[in-house]
Amino acid sequence: MDARAPGLAAGYPASMRRLCEAFSRMPGVGRRTAERLTYYVLRASSDEAAELAAAIQAVKQSVGYCSVCHNVTETDPCEICADPRRDHATVCVVEEPKDVIAIEAGGEYRGVYHVLLGRLSPLEGVEAEDLTLDALSQRVRSGQVREIVIATSPNLEGDGTALYIHRQLAPLGVKVTRISRDVPSGSSLEHSSPSIINDAILGRREM
Amino acid sequence: MDARAPGLAAGYPASMRRLCEAFSRMPGVGRRTAERLTYYVLRASSDEAAELAAAIQAVKQSVGYCSVCHNVTETDPCEICADPRRDHATVCVVEEPKDVIAIEAGGEYRGVYHVLLGRLSPLEGVEAEDLTLDALSQRVRSGQVREIVIATSPNLEGDGTALYIHRQLAPLGVKVTRISRDVPSGSSLEHSSPSIINDAILGRREM
Repeated sequence: MDARAPGLAAGYPASMRRLCEAFSRMPGVGRRTAERLTYYVLRASSDEAAELAAAIQAVKQSVGYCSVCHNVTETDPCEICADPRRDHATVCVVEEPKDVIAIEAGGEYRGVYHVLLGRLSPLEGVEAEDLTLDALSQRVRSGQVREIVIATSPNLEGDGTALYIHRQLAPLGVKVTRISRDVPSGSSLEHSSPSIINDAILGRREM
Repeated sequence: MDARAPGLAAGYPASMRRLCEAFSRMPGVGRRTAERLTYYVLRASSDEAAELAAAIQAVKQSVGYCSVCHNVTETDPCEICADPRRDHATVCVVEEPKDVIAIEAGGEYRGVYHVLLGRLSPLEGVEAEDLTLDALSQRVRSGQVREIVIATSPNLEGDGTALYIHRQLAPLGVKVTRISRDVPSGSSLEHSSPSIINDAILGRREM
């Protein structure tokens, strides 16, 4: 053990360094936070540590993406896509699974979803083929969709993504609407209240 | 699935909620951070997720506390306590394993350590029996220790802990020194440079 060696948590037992490095790979977790989390595991009961490890494995084993809407799900198709009481001719296009949760929390929307798993961002190198846009076109071409409600974020990149989708789908003869800008401009769906989200969806306008 | 149910990440698949809750139990991890980390696991490769889960288990299985000095270790006694080239008659008392690493990074100290695993803090309810103070008295009573170098943090609680140890050990006839206050007052060992730590240990004074 050479405690003078540079690098992550040099001087700690090898398995603590290994865990510290694994935590450091997570987004927004720097070296100090990784050390703090490693200490948490060291001091946690065996049951707590086993639960954390098992929960990590369980997510990888049982959660996937719905083959219809690309939302996160443990069943395929997901519960919303499999629900006969939903209006399957109305498809709300959102960026992330958490946007589905925000709109469902509103409780007014009765259609189904399409999750892009991101938004177009030329600056961050996110292009059309990185999103689930081809799958969305396929859904529209199937002829089962009457209206596409675009609920991407009301900011520059979300608006750009909405325009791209409108240009791509309008020629296919489907009605394309955009949720009302009553969702504060520059904001995001997940930070809006349920009633604001309900109003935005009810007040959607054709693009 | 009732997406309107309150609580942590309602609306997500059950295994994602479970992981989110496990992450939320970690210190300094709020709900949003737990969600972010859960998404990281979902999007990570199977190898990355398996490595994180395995690293958590490995820490619990292979890291424990040295029965002599109470530092974290994968062997018992730890590498420092088992090293015949160290001066086993000089024992440096620190609060946490990371203080051992800070002093070892300095490279001047050749004695051994005693890790308290905390410091006295009446406000936070940390009392003498919560630390490894009894084990420290036992080490001194064994007659093998000539000098105790107290390197608790140079702040109110670290100074209080040092005074407590001095009162407890001085009657046993051992020399008790405190590291020099050249470690900036109110600071901590781990944020001091190696040369400041070396100077503080070399400049220690009898209490």
